[in-house]
Amino acid sequence: MPFELSSHLSAQATRVETVLDHLLDENRTEGEIERPQRLLKAMRHAVLGGGKRLRPVLMMETAALFGRTDDGVVVAGAALECIHCYSLVHDDLPAMDDDDLRRGQPTVHKAFDEATAILAGDALLTLAFDVIGDERVHRDAGKRLALSRELSRASGIGGMAGGQMLDLESEHRTRSEPEIRTLQAMKTGALLRYACRAGAVLGDAPDADVDRLTRFGEVIGLAFQLADDLLDVEADPAAMGKATGKDAAAGKATLVGLMGAENTRQELDRLLSEANDLLVPYAERAGILIALARFIVQRKN
Amino acid sequence: MPFELSSHLSAQATRVETVLDHLLDENRTEGEIERPQRLLKAMRHAVLGGGKRLRPVLMMETAALFGRTDDGVVVAGAALECIHCYSLVHDDLPAMDDDDLRRGQPTVHKAFDEATAILAGDALLTLAFDVIGDERVHRDAGKRLALSRELSRASGIGGMAGGQMLDLESEHRTRSEPEIRTLQAMKTGALLRYACRAGAVLGDAPDADVDRLTRFGEVIGLAFQLADDLLDVEADPAAMGKATGKDAAAGKATLVGLMGAENTRQELDRLLSEANDLLVPYAERAGILIALARFIVQRKN
Repeated sequence: MPFELSSHLSAQATRVETVLDHLLDENRTEGEIERPQRLLKAMRHAVLGGGKRLRPVLMMETAALFGRTDDGVVVAGAALECIHCYSLVHDDLPAMDDDDLRRGQPTVHKAFDEATAILAGDALLTLAFDVIGDERVHRDAGKRLALSRELSRASGIGGMAGGQMLDLESEHRTRSEPEIRTLQAMKTGALLRYACRAGAVLGDAPDADVDRLTRFGEVIGLAFQLADDLLDVEADPAAMGKATGKDAAAGKATLVGLMGAENTRQELDRLLSEANDLLVPYAERAGILIALARFIVQRKN
Repeated sequence: MPFELSSHLSAQATRVETVLDHLLDENRTEGEIERPQRLLKAMRHAVLGGGKRLRPVLMMETAALFGRTDDGVVVAGAALECIHCYSLVHDDLPAMDDDDLRRGQPTVHKAFDEATAILAGDALLTLAFDVIGDERVHRDAGKRLALSRELSRASGIGGMAGGQMLDLESEHRTRSEPEIRTLQAMKTGALLRYACRAGAVLGDAPDADVDRLTRFGEVIGLAFQLADDLLDVEADPAAMGKATGKDAAAGKATLVGLMGAENTRQELDRLLSEANDLLVPYAERAGILIALARFIVQRKN
C-alpha cells in the first residue's frame, strides 16, 4: 500500500479512536451518571487495544464519496466499532471460541474475568445504540433512527449474532457450501455490508447509489471472509496476533476447505473485480475504497 | 388485589406476550432473513416463560394516564421486556449469579448451553433497539429515537449493566448504605424509572408530567428493590420459583441487612405514600397505577 494512502487510513482510524476514547473517558461524567471503573476499564481494553478499524473506515470512505467527511460520520463509525468489539469480547469467552489472545494481548476475560467480560460486551453493545443516535450523525432524526434499526438488524439474530450461533453449531454438523456462505454473510458480512450502506445513507446518496454501495459491502464482506479463511489455513500465529488453524482443529468446514486454496484465490480475484466495477461511477473519488478492497483481499494479518 | 384489577393487569400482560410471541415467531420470515432455530428457541425460552411483565405494564398504564392505550405502547413495552429478559439470562450465567432456576424453570444456559445463553441475551438486547423504533410506537421519529437512546442509557454502563457490575463487586467489598442505594438505582431502578418516564413520553405528556412520572418510576424502583430484599430474607424458595437467601450467602450487604426489616417496612410505607401523592393530579385515572405501586410493596413473590 502506498505510503500516502496508508497514512490517510491510519489518520482515519485515529479519528475513530479519538471518539471511542472520549466516549469511554475515565474522567468524564455525564450529569450524575455513575460509571463503574472496572467495567469502564474492561470496555476500554476491548475497544482501544488496536485493530484496523476497518468497518468505521469503510463507512467514512463511503460517505466521503458523497462529500461527507465531517466528524458526525466518525461518531457513527464509532458506534459500529462498539458493536464489532463487543462481538469479539463475547466470541472470545470460554463458552464460545475460548481464546486467550486478541491482537497479541490478553482477551478481556483473561485480563479481567468472565463476568466482567460478559458485562463489558453487553455495555458496548448497548452504548452503540446511544451513539448512533447522536445529533452529529445526521441532521434528520428519522435517518438516525433508520440507521439505528438497521444496525440492530445487522447485529442481531438475523445478522451477526445469528451467524455466530450457526458457526458454533458447525462444530457438531457438516455444512454445505451454501450453508457456509449464509453463515458467513451473517456472522461477518452483515456488519461490513452495513458499514458501506450506512456510509451512503449518511452521505444522502440517492437510492440507486445506496443499493450499489450495499452490494459493494456484500462483496467486500465475502472477500473478507475468504481472505480470513485463507489466512487461518496459511498464516502463522505470530503475524496474526491470535491462534490460527482453529477452524480445522474444531472440525469446522470452511469454504477454503471445500473449494481448495486455488479456487478461493480465483474467487477473491473475481470479487475484487466486481468491487472495482461497482465503484466505476465514482471515478477517482473511489480510489481509497478500491485500495481498501484490494487490501482486504491481499492482507497478511 | 381485587379480581377486576387482577384480570385487567393479566390482560395487559397478555397483550405484551402476544407482541413478544409474534416478534419471535418461529414460522415468520422477514424477507430473506435467516433466524437460526436454536437461537430463536432460546430467546423464546427467555422471554415467554412467564413473568409479571411489570415494566411494560407500568409503561402502558402510565401512557394510559394521558389517553394512549393503543398497541404502539405495547410494542414499546415489548422492547423494554426484551432488555429485562436479556439481563436475566446473562445474570443467571455460571460466571455471574450462577442460577439454575428462574420462575421455576431451568435457566437458559441449563435448558440450552452457556454459549447459546450468551448469544440469546445478546440477540434480545439487540432486538430491543429495532422494536423500540417501530413506527407504531409513536408517529414522531424524533421521539422514537429519543426513547431508543434513553433505553440505551437506562440499560448500559450508567444504568442496569453498570449496576450489575457493582453488585458483582459487592461480594468482595463492604458497601455503605448510599453505595447500595446507587447500585440498586442502577441495577433495578433504571428500567423501572424508564418504564414510567417512557410511558409519559409516549402519551405526549407535558414536560412537568414527564418529570412527575419519572419521579414516580424512581420511587417505584426503590420500593421494588426493598421489597425484593425483604423477600430474599423472608420468603421460601417454592413461593419465589428461585433460590432465596442468596445475598446473605454471597456475603452481599443489603439495605434490609443494614436497616433491619422493621425500618425497611417503614420506608416502604413512606415510598408508597409518596407514590400516591405523585399521582394525585390524575385523580381516578391513576387507580391502576396506585394499585400497581401497592402490589410492588406488598408482593409475596
